[in-house]
Amino acid sequence: MPTGREIRLAARPNGMPRHGDFTLAEVDVPEPGPGEVLVRNLWMSVDPYMRPRMNDVPSYVPPYELGRVLDGPAVGAVVASRAEGLAPGDTVVHWQGWRDLALLGGHEARRVDTELAPAQAYIGVLGMSGLTAYVGLLDIAGLREGDVVFVSAAAGMVGSLAGQIARLRGHRTIGSAGTDAKVAHLRDDLGFDAAFNYRSGDVADLLREAAPDGIDVYFDNVGGDHLEAAIDVLREHGRVAMCGAISTYNSAGAALPTLRNQFKIVGKRLTLRGFIASDHMRRMREFREVAGPWLRDGRIVARETVFEGLEHAPDALIALLAGENVGKMLVRIA
Amino acid sequence: MPTGREIRLAARPNGMPRHGDFTLAEVDVPEPGPGEVLVRNLWMSVDPYMRPRMNDVPSYVPPYELGRVLDGPAVGAVVASRAEGLAPGDTVVHWQGWRDLALLGGHEARRVDTELAPAQAYIGVLGMSGLTAYVGLLDIAGLREGDVVFVSAAAGMVGSLAGQIARLRGHRTIGSAGTDAKVAHLRDDLGFDAAFNYRSGDVADLLREAAPDGIDVYFDNVGGDHLEAAIDVLREHGRVAMCGAISTYNSAGAALPTLRNQFKIVGKRLTLRGFIASDHMRRMREFREVAGPWLRDGRIVARETVFEGLEHAPDALIALLAGENVGKMLVRIA
Repeated sequence: MPTGREIRLAARPNGMPRHGDFTLAEVDVPEPGPGEVLVRNLWMSVDPYMRPRMNDVPSYVPPYELGRVLDGPAVGAVVASRAEGLAPGDTVVHWQGWRDLALLGGHEARRVDTELAPAQAYIGVLGMSGLTAYVGLLDIAGLREGDVVFVSAAAGMVGSLAGQIARLRGHRTIGSAGTDAKVAHLRDDLGFDAAFNYRSGDVADLLREAAPDGIDVYFDNVGGDHLEAAIDVLREHGRVAMCGAISTYNSAGAALPTLRNQFKIVGKRLTLRGFIASDHMRRMREFREVAGPWLRDGRIVARETVFEGLEHAPDALIALLAGENVGKMLVRIA
Repeated sequence: MPTGREIRLAARPNGMPRHGDFTLAEVDVPEPGPGEVLVRNLWMSVDPYMRPRMNDVPSYVPPYELGRVLDGPAVGAVVASRAEGLAPGDTVVHWQGWRDLALLGGHEARRVDTELAPAQAYIGVLGMSGLTAYVGLLDIAGLREGDVVFVSAAAGMVGSLAGQIARLRGHRTIGSAGTDAKVAHLRDDLGFDAAFNYRSGDVADLLREAAPDGIDVYFDNVGGDHLEAAIDVLREHGRVAMCGAISTYNSAGAALPTLRNQFKIVGKRLTLRGFIASDHMRRMREFREVAGPWLRDGRIVARETVFEGLEHAPDALIALLAGENVGKMLVRIA
């Protein structure tokens, strides 16, 4: 029986997670039974919503359990299969990240084509991250001609794709990020029309300066003062696609997010709509047909920040929550 | 030339308005010119959104101007007319409240039938208040079969109608109000299935107790901790019709409203949508066709709280903001 390694939740964090909140454990992994596959993970994804899953609060995905292995998107190579249609050597995406060996039901693994794009693209730009950006802009915010689009956490994977999709569709696009280097990346590499470092002043002032005539769509990855600022600057009938609220995930006590201007949601007839990309899987094929050629032709830039080794997955999550990534945050497992 | 009286904005309030923020002035009112009517106001409406209009902040209606007369819904009797289709003795609704004599363009005044309902109903239950409740529930919240509906400020005019419309359509309906007497009124007179006094504990706890299985629609007149509580208790794909945020209108400093649980908007895929009934005037005829018979047959209760005399209109607004009304807050001018 092969021995695998996995990352478990050792303690529920209070504020920013720390190394001691995770443990690395060895486990025996059984050979696949009928209908199962054994996968050696190559890459795993680290995503902001994993932070709220570390709390004992029910949400759209159940909280991580204390003492148990975490999970999340991963891509790997089939090493043994008793599942129809899957053979050793196949590359598959699935949901059992945070471990090096994954034993899966065949229906939990989906084969991907690594000739079209590298394996890790399927848990990033051509995976849920990309679908999130696409669905959030088109279906949730209902992007229409002439909309001015603002994206927060715009140097992250979802934000950078949302901004680039908006730009490719001809919209004036504004992004925020937390360092001057990221702001330069937004302007110079990703083609944002305007960008600002939200740490350099009051977010509403900075946004108003970047969008003096206002915005129509806000793609929100951040919440907190970004959301408040966007509500200030949105024009009438503006729309907010609420994708995440990373600024609030570690907050407690004095840092509790306000929404002082909530009456403006009424006065400007704004719509704020939360969404989860996994509700919209039916759009994945269309999204890949649209985004695949963009990626191949270099019209979309999809940067990666890579941590090496499963044992550094907790560091990758902590760095992500501290805003240290550019583009997709990945852990290379094998 | 007749002499009229009007209420002017003397100072912009900080927090709850005070008497000194208003002055009563006498003015000469010219005879109507071609196309104009002169109206003696009988009733005027006092509404929560008038408080934000006292601030120097642009919104969907312009702020009141310092030293100038306020405005708002009123109903009165034509005393002189040079406008086609309007004759002395006609009862008309219009937008020039906060004064006893109104000189209007004929197109600004709409004749109403006082045989069907008393004059003041047209600035209340059969006017914008009623339309607000109707459109908010049906169009903005997209009420559907089986929805559990929560209404805040449910003893006020808009809230009491929203709750009663939901009940008449077969929905389980929960209301909140700020006194035990109002709570009894919600249960005993208006037919709410459950009601609570939000001052008697934590709003989220009280709401959870009243709706142990959660709510699907929140008709928000209040904002602040009510909005936060509703987001806690809403089920997946729940909807908030944001009609007002009275709890935030006078807030400053330490009382700034938080929205600590904004990530739940994402996780539960909630939609929050602000609206203004005047965008939906095309629905007024349908609304009156539906609500008129309900009112006539006593299936809808439309209580009134009346202040006597134009000079007491500021008191009426202050009392409204303090939650002292049951049903429609009105000032009887003549």
